[in-house]
Amino acid sequence: MVSDDIVTRELENPMDVAEYLFRRLHEVGIRAVHGVPGDYNLAALDYLPKCGLDWVGNCNELNAGYAADGYARVKGISALITTFGVGELSALNAIAGAYSEFVPIIHIVGQPTTQSQKNGMLLHHTLGNGDFNVFNRMSAAISCYVARLEDPRDAATLIDSAIRECWVRSRPVYVTLPTDMIASKVNGNRLKQPIDLSLPGNDPEKEDYVVDVVLKYLHAAKNPVILVDACAIRHRVLDEVHDLVEASGLPTFVAPMGKGAVNEAHKNFGGVYAGNGSNPGVSEVIESSDLILSIGAIKSDFNTTGFTYRIGQLNTIDFHSTYVRVRYSEYPDVHMKGVLRKVVQRMGKLNLSPIPHITNKVPESEQTSSQTITHAWLWPTVGQWLKENDVVITETGTANFGIWDTRFPANVTALSQVLWGSIGYSMGACQGAALAAKEQNNRRTILFIGDGSTQLTVQELSTMLRNKLNPIIFVICNEGYTIERYIHGWEAGYNDIQPWDYANIPKVFGGQDAYKSYRIKTRDELTKLFANKDFSTPNQLQLVELYMPRNDAPAGLKLTAEAAAERNK
Amino acid sequence: MVSDDIVTRELENPMDVAEYLFRRLHEVGIRAVHGVPGDYNLAALDYLPKCGLDWVGNCNELNAGYAADGYARVKGISALITTFGVGELSALNAIAGAYSEFVPIIHIVGQPTTQSQKNGMLLHHTLGNGDFNVFNRMSAAISCYVARLEDPRDAATLIDSAIRECWVRSRPVYVTLPTDMIASKVNGNRLKQPIDLSLPGNDPEKEDYVVDVVLKYLHAAKNPVILVDACAIRHRVLDEVHDLVEASGLPTFVAPMGKGAVNEAHKNFGGVYAGNGSNPGVSEVIESSDLILSIGAIKSDFNTTGFTYRIGQLNTIDFHSTYVRVRYSEYPDVHMKGVLRKVVQRMGKLNLSPIPHITNKVPESEQTSSQTITHAWLWPTVGQWLKENDVVITETGTANFGIWDTRFPANVTALSQVLWGSIGYSMGACQGAALAAKEQNNRRTILFIGDGSTQLTVQELSTMLRNKLNPIIFVICNEGYTIERYIHGWEAGYNDIQPWDYANIPKVFGGQDAYKSYRIKTRDELTKLFANKDFSTPNQLQLVELYMPRNDAPAGLKLTAEAAAERNK
Repeated sequence: MVSDDIVTRELENPMDVAEYLFRRLHEVGIRAVHGVPGDYNLAALDYLPKCGLDWVGNCNELNAGYAADGYARVKGISALITTFGVGELSALNAIAGAYSEFVPIIHIVGQPTTQSQKNGMLLHHTLGNGDFNVFNRMSAAISCYVARLEDPRDAATLIDSAIRECWVRSRPVYVTLPTDMIASKVNGNRLKQPIDLSLPGNDPEKEDYVVDVVLKYLHAAKNPVILVDACAIRHRVLDEVHDLVEASGLPTFVAPMGKGAVNEAHKNFGGVYAGNGSNPGVSEVIESSDLILSIGAIKSDFNTTGFTYRIGQLNTIDFHSTYVRVRYSEYPDVHMKGVLRKVVQRMGKLNLSPIPHITNKVPESEQTSSQTITHAWLWPTVGQWLKENDVVITETGTANFGIWDTRFPANVTALSQVLWGSIGYSMGACQGAALAAKEQNNRRTILFIGDGSTQLTVQELSTMLRNKLNPIIFVICNEGYTIERYIHGWEAGYNDIQPWDYANIPKVFGGQDAYKSYRIKTRDELTKLFANKDFSTPNQLQLVELYMPRNDAPAGLKLTAEAAAERNK
Repeated sequence: MVSDDIVTRELENPMDVAEYLFRRLHEVGIRAVHGVPGDYNLAALDYLPKCGLDWVGNCNELNAGYAADGYARVKGISALITTFGVGELSALNAIAGAYSEFVPIIHIVGQPTTQSQKNGMLLHHTLGNGDFNVFNRMSAAISCYVARLEDPRDAATLIDSAIRECWVRSRPVYVTLPTDMIASKVNGNRLKQPIDLSLPGNDPEKEDYVVDVVLKYLHAAKNPVILVDACAIRHRVLDEVHDLVEASGLPTFVAPMGKGAVNEAHKNFGGVYAGNGSNPGVSEVIESSDLILSIGAIKSDFNTTGFTYRIGQLNTIDFHSTYVRVRYSEYPDVHMKGVLRKVVQRMGKLNLSPIPHITNKVPESEQTSSQTITHAWLWPTVGQWLKENDVVITETGTANFGIWDTRFPANVTALSQVLWGSIGYSMGACQGAALAAKEQNNRRTILFIGDGSTQLTVQELSTMLRNKLNPIIFVICNEGYTIERYIHGWEAGYNDIQPWDYANIPKVFGGQDAYKSYRIKTRDELTKLFANKDFSTPNQLQLVELYMPRNDAPAGLKLTAEAAAERNK
């Protein structure tokens, strides 16, 4: 693909490719770039400051990828810079996770010069076989677009397309930047025209048709409900969802991956639906509903307590970014955004049914004199402590399931990786999220991670300290991989971990006086900590060792793990 | 491919696939398996103990991959177990490095059941698109063989082939193990027949022909020399090389990646040849030689000080695992092993020339009253301290170049990743190497790593502590990525790192009393430490913070970095 630049023999406003690329990143809202320096990307990094971009400087590339994922989930989009081969491959797991969960990351890879590649030189960071395309092919499989910058004549066009595709399809894109391209010239005047990030509009006649069908069933339904899931967040229809909830008055639920999609303090909010692992009273309402408006569903095992949904397709309207399905009728190439907007506008009076009352009250069975911090006690208690605008991150493990029992205040952004489920993700994601949250008027960032997961990516605590971020990090100390124990190997040594002194890790990572640590072993201690204003209004990194029983887990996890163990047979 | 098992309707000695696989690993010398548990591999891990295999339990998969690489370089072959998607992708960089540098790792990936894969289920650890083959394809590109265990009828055959290919081709293989295959039955009687690990023999007539040609030139040469490189180690011709050195009496040199291939205490040893970065006096001898017996060369940029070899092909005989080249005559499909053996046997009297005298004497320019630990002082001094049988690991960075100036005692095994050059590699590799060294009569394991590199993979210190390993780890504290400063960004912030308290990291990783740390800032302190018998006969993990100037580097690095910077333009 060659752009119109090809005819511009003499560029009016010559601009280096790296500057053009970074100014475009700034234009779409990125203010900090994650990554690790490497000799094939160093010269490009020189351009960051003048383009208004900070360099984060992560400890390793996998963590940088996770951090970019976290940043994108809060800010909308992010960028990651790695180096050829060694750097980019280390980040692949993070990129695959972003692909799986629809997170837009622009992954820029510094490469040897185009000439070195053509000559198949025996350079460091290669497989030694002269094939410079092996890594491209790996990344192409988990990217929605690949821009190989090899010629200044089409570089700007490819950059613009990459950023647009990343945003619109909400998935990672892969951009190669050979060292000789960094200072190659493109037409800087192109920057006057902002990148078009608008969704392609639906065919109006088709859209109207679908809206009419939806409304027909909706108006006829006796007890319709709304169920919101991850893709409503990732494909950016939360305004439409909010208006739908508001205008319809319908009982509104979220799947686990949809936590944070709707205002959980809203009177219409009825809790989490996850099949057998749902909040009390929720499955009864959803499963007896005669019409579920299912928005952005990802019905994966860990999002449905092991495929235990009991919803018939005859009672369901599915809204997605690429199609709408009404009962069994499919309407391809229709984006939910336009449809939802018109449904709100044209909706008449609906039949309303009672909404389950979900609170952060600790269940009666847990209202004992025990001081043991159990999951059943913890998560509602956390809900009482959270504030509006918090960013809450939960790790794949007990926390990802426990959070089902936390009712959020308004405007909470929730991060988790329920589908991809890579342990260690949340520590990296916390770094990126905390940075993004800082840019958003210093929102609080709160992480719940297990001790086992912490060990995979612990060094990103250092990056948080280095970047003066102030997250509150709860390390659930329960002696290993509890989620795995519930699946297989209850007493097996492979589910144990080396005991660490988590509270003192920030210290050895150069934390100096810029952090605070706590060891919390009783309910009273945690309640007191939550009541502490200094703790709750953080101006430094805070790490809480939270001791919980080795064998305790949220109910949702127990059920999900049981199903997984059964399926693995 | 379906084995003869297909006709064995009733197996005589039914054995679970996992047991068969692990008994084969044991047979080829593996005693410990690296990896991270994940729900798709847990049930397989249960089989390890009864097959005589220990589970290492690394902190993350990249580190586990590096560790498996280190273990293989000492023991000959290794195994790595990860879980589908998230786990295996995290290890890809390590596997690519092993592919690049010819290290045999059997990578076993626990997968969802074959049925779940066929049904394209929306499981955790998937891309959510029903495609279970994306990760296979990625790994296939950096593996010399792929064994997908999907049917008990050919599982044993595929396992045997995978292990054989891994060994013979000295590169990673990829083995998938779906959870429903773990306890599927194969014929256990196959184990009575050991896996054939022998090299395919050369065509005898062809081999004799090549030997005659080699001898013709060798006998005619006025001042022939031997130059040994990485593939002599990786393709296991060190016995032949040793006999060649002994029988011929020729001056013998190594490339940087060939360090440890020959006995450097031998009178024939003349030092390191690396073009412009060679040991003193070496390039003069090599470049004026009229016949270089070049054994297992990998002429990559970092192995040749930026392609500064000055050797003509007319003066070279190249010995490789798949071909021999005499001047410009190529002899494909001839393995060097058989050729070298016969060359030794049939060799007549040769012309001998003087051998450069390489010592571990500190150069005169460094014999000052300064207490600053410079590279020029350090590496010969290290050479005086090393002992026979040591395992020495150097990180991509100053250490990989500094070690050129260390003359080893006999039987030192040297690990480095000069071609692939992934920073952080050596900390993981040290864990694997130290474990392998422990199995080999408690050899000492010594690591030199920079502070920047340590930050990528630091948590493997925890794995070393957990497995009661006793390496001596020198962390070169020089405030960041010095190798990168020499390439680009001398004062750039992106080459800085967060200052850590390295000496106390083992403590927070649960080291208790099972480690010792040192802070060394002067030459006298280091000399004293080297003289300390307790330090030099380690019975616990020891970590030395070694303070060196931020801007000091070995000469070889300076020249190589200059060339890299030039080529990146």
